[in-house]
Amino acid sequence: MFTGLSAFPLTPMSERGIQEAAFTHLIESLTAARVDAIGALGSTGSYAYLTRAERARVAKLAVASAGDTPVMVGIGALRTRDVLTLAEDAQLAGASGVLLAPVSYQNLNDDEVFGLYDTVCRALSVPLCVYDNPGTTHFAFSDELHGRIAQLPQVRSIKIPGVPGDVEAVRARVERLRRLIPSDVTIGISGDPLAATGLAAGCDGWYSAIGGLYPRTMLAITRAAQAGDTEQALALSARLTPLWDSFRQHGGSLRVIATAAELQGLVSHPSLPLPLKTLEGADRQALANVLETLELE
Amino acid sequence: MFTGLSAFPLTPMSERGIQEAAFTHLIESLTAARVDAIGALGSTGSYAYLTRAERARVAKLAVASAGDTPVMVGIGALRTRDVLTLAEDAQLAGASGVLLAPVSYQNLNDDEVFGLYDTVCRALSVPLCVYDNPGTTHFAFSDELHGRIAQLPQVRSIKIPGVPGDVEAVRARVERLRRLIPSDVTIGISGDPLAATGLAAGCDGWYSAIGGLYPRTMLAITRAAQAGDTEQALALSARLTPLWDSFRQHGGSLRVIATAAELQGLVSHPSLPLPLKTLEGADRQALANVLETLELE
Repeated sequence: MFTGLSAFPLTPMSERGIQEAAFTHLIESLTAARVDAIGALGSTGSYAYLTRAERARVAKLAVASAGDTPVMVGIGALRTRDVLTLAEDAQLAGASGVLLAPVSYQNLNDDEVFGLYDTVCRALSVPLCVYDNPGTTHFAFSDELHGRIAQLPQVRSIKIPGVPGDVEAVRARVERLRRLIPSDVTIGISGDPLAATGLAAGCDGWYSAIGGLYPRTMLAITRAAQAGDTEQALALSARLTPLWDSFRQHGGSLRVIATAAELQGLVSHPSLPLPLKTLEGADRQALANVLETLELE
Repeated sequence: MFTGLSAFPLTPMSERGIQEAAFTHLIESLTAARVDAIGALGSTGSYAYLTRAERARVAKLAVASAGDTPVMVGIGALRTRDVLTLAEDAQLAGASGVLLAPVSYQNLNDDEVFGLYDTVCRALSVPLCVYDNPGTTHFAFSDELHGRIAQLPQVRSIKIPGVPGDVEAVRARVERLRRLIPSDVTIGISGDPLAATGLAAGCDGWYSAIGGLYPRTMLAITRAAQAGDTEQALALSARLTPLWDSFRQHGGSLRVIATAAELQGLVSHPSLPLPLKTLEGADRQALANVLETLELE
C-alpha cells in the first residue's frame, strides 16, 4: 500500500455538507485508473475541517467505492484523545492503513510528538504512515525523530515533503533518512512539483494530491520512474510546469486542484470549506487555460 | 471590556475532561483581584483542543463565576461554519464579547480572512476582538488588513502580538496601526514579556496569559503604566525576567503557566490536553525555584 502512486482525492463540500456522489465518483475514477493506493482525508481531503461523523462517513464511502484498491485514511487531529477515536473509526470503516500528521495549535516538541505516535500505535491494528507536512502542521521533524518513530511496530511508511534540488541531492537526503529507519519502512514523496525528482532519487512512492484528480497522467510519471527511466519521468513532470507554477502562485495545491475539479464539472462550486475559497476571476480563467493546454487525465 | 488588564486563565483538563472546580476557582480569583476583564477560552485556555459542548460549558462556567467582571470568549475554529456555531454558543452563555483568531490548517490569504470576520460580524450582537497571534495561527496580518477588518461594526479591539524594541519603537508601531483603524477600536498587547513596554507605548490594554494565574502582580504593572509611571511598570516587569526567560525556553507561556498552576496546587496534573505536556524533571524544579523567588500573586 505504501509504494507506487497513492492518490489523495478532494473531499468536495459546501457549508451544507459533503458532496457524497461527487466524492464517490472521484474514488471510482482512481480505482479505474489503477492507482496503487487511495489516501482519503489527506490534506487535500480537508480532513482537518470535518467533524468526527463526517470523517467516519467519508472513510466508509472511500472503502466502499475503492474495490480492491487499498485505502489509507487520515486520522490527524490536535488532540491525542481525538486521534485515538478517529483511528478506531477508520479501522471500523475498513481502512487498510492510516496516515497521521502531528497537527498543532501550540507548537509541539519532539517528546510530545513521539508520545503521540507511541500512544496511537499501541491502539492500532493496521499500518501507519507518518505524515510529515510542515507547511500545514508547522512541526519540523528531524531525521533523528523520524528514526525513533519509525521503530514503532505499526509504522510502515514516511510521507516526506518535497525536497528541492537535483536527483543526486535528493538521493543523498533520502539515503540519510533511510539509514535511520528500518528497512521495511518505505519513504514516499509528496509536494507534487518535486515528485518526479523524488521518485528518481529512490523514494518508494508518491503521495500525490494532483494524482487524486488526474491519476493517469501521474501514473505515467510514476511508472516511468519505477522502470528506471528517469529522463522520461522528469520530462513528463516538466511538461506540467504551468500547473506547478500555479500551485506556487496560490499558496499550495489545494485551491488549484479544487478549482480544476469545479471547472471540469467533477464537483460543484463551492467545493472547499469556508473560509477557504477556490480561485476567482482572472486566476480562475488562467487555470482553465492551463488545463486546456495540458490535457490532464 | 477591551482596556486595562484582561486575564486569560487556563482551562485545566485531563484526558477524562475539564477540571471544572479548578477552573471556577481560577475565575473567582480573577474577579476577587478585580481584573478589568476575563478572557475565557483563549490560547491559554486551550480552546482549540475542546469540543463544542466543552467550550459551551466552559463559557457558561466563566460567566457564572465572574460576577460583574466582563467575560470575552474565544470562538476560533478552522471552519467558518464552526465559528458561527461557537459565536452563538458564547452569546447564549452570556459572554460580553468574543475573541476570534484566524486559525489555519491550510494557509489563509487576506481575502479569506476578511471574509471570515465579515461573515461572523454579521451574525454577532456582542463586540468582537480581533486576535492576531501568528505563533499559533500562522497567519500574518498586515496593518492594511487590520484597517479593513476594524471597519466592521462589531470590531472593538485588536489583540496584537508582542512588539520587540524600546518604548519609542513600539509607540511608532502602535501609532502606525492606529492611523488605520477607527478611534473607538482599542489596541491590546499580548506576549507577556513585552507587555509593560507595550502599555508604556500607548496600548489601551494587556491581554495577558500570566495574568490569568497571577492577576495582582500583573495588575500592579498595568496600573503603573496607566498612571503614566513608565519607569515603575518597566521595573516591575523586569523583576519577572526569570519567568519571561522560562517562557522563551519552553516554546511559549502555556506549558510554564500550566506547570506553575500544578506546582501551586491550583490544578491537578495532568492539566494540559495530550500531546501537550507540562514541564518535567529538572525543568519543573527550575520553575519551582523561580516561583519561590518571585512571590507572584
